Amino acid sequence: MDCGQIAQPLDWRCTNCEGVLDFEEYPTFIASLIQEDDFTLWRYAQWLPTEKQFSLGEGMTPLVETTIDGQRLLAKLEYLNPTGSYKDRGTVTMMNHIAAQGVTEVVEDSSGNAGASVAAYSSAMGIKARIYVPESGSPAKKGLIKAFGGTLMEIAGAQHAKTEAAMEAAKETPYASHAWSPYFVLGQMTVAFEVWEQTRGNLPDIVVTPLGHGGLFLGFARGFELLHEASLIDKLPKMVAVQSEHCDPIVQAWQQGLNVPPRIQSSKTVADGIIVDVPVRGKEVLAQIRKTGGAAFNVTDEQVIDARDKLAKQGLIAEPTSATTIAALPQINRHFGDNQRILVALTGNGLKGVG
Amino acid sequence: MDCGQIAQPLDWRCTNCEGVLDFEEYPTFIASLIQEDDFTLWRYAQWLPTEKQFSLGEGMTPLVETTIDGQRLLAKLEYLNPTGSYKDRGTVTMMNHIAAQGVTEVVEDSSGNAGASVAAYSSAMGIKARIYVPESGSPAKKGLIKAFGGTLMEIAGAQHAKTEAAMEAAKETPYASHAWSPYFVLGQMTVAFEVWEQTRGNLPDIVVTPLGHGGLFLGFARGFELLHEASLIDKLPKMVAVQSEHCDPIVQAWQQGLNVPPRIQSSKTVADGIIVDVPVRGKEVLAQIRKTGGAAFNVTDEQVIDARDKLAKQGLIAEPTSATTIAALPQINRHFGDNQRILVALTGNGLKGVG
Repeated sequence: MDCGQIAQPLDWRCTNCEGVLDFEEYPTFIASLIQEDDFTLWRYAQWLPTEKQFSLGEGMTPLVETTIDGQRLLAKLEYLNPTGSYKDRGTVTMMNHIAAQGVTEVVEDSSGNAGASVAAYSSAMGIKARIYVPESGSPAKKGLIKAFGGTLMEIAGAQHAKTEAAMEAAKETPYASHAWSPYFVLGQMTVAFEVWEQTRGNLPDIVVTPLGHGGLFLGFARGFELLHEASLIDKLPKMVAVQSEHCDPIVQAWQQGLNVPPRIQSSKTVADGIIVDVPVRGKEVLAQIRKTGGAAFNVTDEQVIDARDKLAKQGLIAEPTSATTIAALPQINRHFGDNQRILVALTGNGLKGVG
Repeated sequence: MDCGQIAQPLDWRCTNCEGVLDFEEYPTFIASLIQEDDFTLWRYAQWLPTEKQFSLGEGMTPLVETTIDGQRLLAKLEYLNPTGSYKDRGTVTMMNHIAAQGVTEVVEDSSGNAGASVAAYSSAMGIKARIYVPESGSPAKKGLIKAFGGTLMEIAGAQHAKTEAAMEAAKETPYASHAWSPYFVLGQMTVAFEVWEQTRGNLPDIVVTPLGHGGLFLGFARGFELLHEASLIDKLPKMVAVQSEHCDPIVQAWQQGLNVPPRIQSSKTVADGIIVDVPVRGKEVLAQIRKTGGAAFNVTDEQVIDARDKLAKQGLIAEPTSATTIAALPQINRHFGDNQRILVALTGNGLKGVG
């Protein structure tokens, strides 16, 4: 759509320029249109591009105060979404759209959480889902995809191999892609509206998310933009992306002042939810970091495990990927100075890894 | 308190008659006092006996429509509470009360979920927790208790042995008992208020819960009573308790027309969250079943696993204990006839068991 071509409902990227698709315009946020007797993300149905035919009760996840190493933080518990990750916000929007087209089978590729989410919604909506995963992926996440009724397609080779296999399959079967679908990103936007309601309009100074493809990060950023355009907030929170040092294309781009992430080759990390060598929306992520005065940091596996354990001692059972946000706190404090109100997004449920 | 004695704040049972403690009177439910800009159970703070000093964002869990074997149902996703079970509703009320007494250490006994919940809240509130569990308990749940910072006390022998060990310890250290604390049951009551709001006052005909000690069951029943006394509903939903055939004191009592559960000896079951030989509030559970025109059913392990798998295919990742409610559907339908609006409470997160 950078090239101006209009997409068809099931296109996952531009058939002309192979670019990322997006909606031509976004609706105006009008607070009085919130459906206040709905306690899920469908209270924002007005701003979603699909009708609700099916829901697992996604969204309106808790926003809680917590303390890590003496520092007060807000934590948005995205891991309390129905299938255990923030992905459900995008999946429910995307799958309701896809189902409305009369589709009976989809493909998706995912290192885990997105695959589980798409498998769950597809199966419940009577749609078959083939989920392409790396052979080296987490057994717990693979088990979850199967439990939800998805068909596992295990692909050997580099992280990107499963994506290439899914793209090949997507020539025949609709691609329910959490990375590419513009419907997915639009669903993610609801997280920003929730934080606005939950803080009674008093948004944090800084919002920190783990970064793979950038779905949640951009959901926050775009949602905040809509609130800003509607004059409901007076400034945009600074958007901070955190990656593993084993897979940090956005961090490298930000450090080097690049507009697009460089091609990298990831290695294994405990933060397995953000092993994404080629972030589909990397360019937009970098633009949002610049626009909001944000930053990007990478963290080590040891820092991540330490952060995960500290979160659990505060009653927050997040998976390692989510704990990257906490692991980056010392860097965030150094960069932005003290006395910032910081929100961390905890994205995946740690119950999966226990036992 | 059956004997009329007034309890002290940290008493866990009557020091005179050893009976269960309860509040002398319950407050009146007045809808206009709901705190509508709070999206957790603290929106009902007016009816809770403790101040909120600490919260993990418990409550306001999704109420979703689902279909099992062609039958439409409402499912209350209690497993999406912060630590992965409905127990958090009671724990947060109980622990805020206990913390307000200046306590620095507690003991609790639990086959798993309650132990994890008490460990999480205690640790986050700076209170040490020793959790007594059966040596034979689920490794995943024990792992979770440890991750949350609880000290595991593994007790060999019958299911009741861990409880006796905890009661012994409770002579020295405050007992944060999910089974005994009246503060715990009062927190559970919020689930009924939520269902009332989420159905816009159109309550189901039948509410089905798994039954161990009866905390959630009585939370529903008492909450509905308050709504009924306030003339906000015109009849009480029929309360149905489900147990495993390997541990079914309430079912035996109901079948035999007893007012108190008989003493039984449980055996191993996949529904490990409701292995409770001696339900502390069994008498009140039986009274509520009779009062509401409800029932009690037991189910086999095979039925439970089958039900658990069917739930997952609908996107609902509940632990086996929760699936007892679904396993009992054929019996419920036979007993009450078709065309009943049924709500099932899904109590524990199934992510723990995957992988």
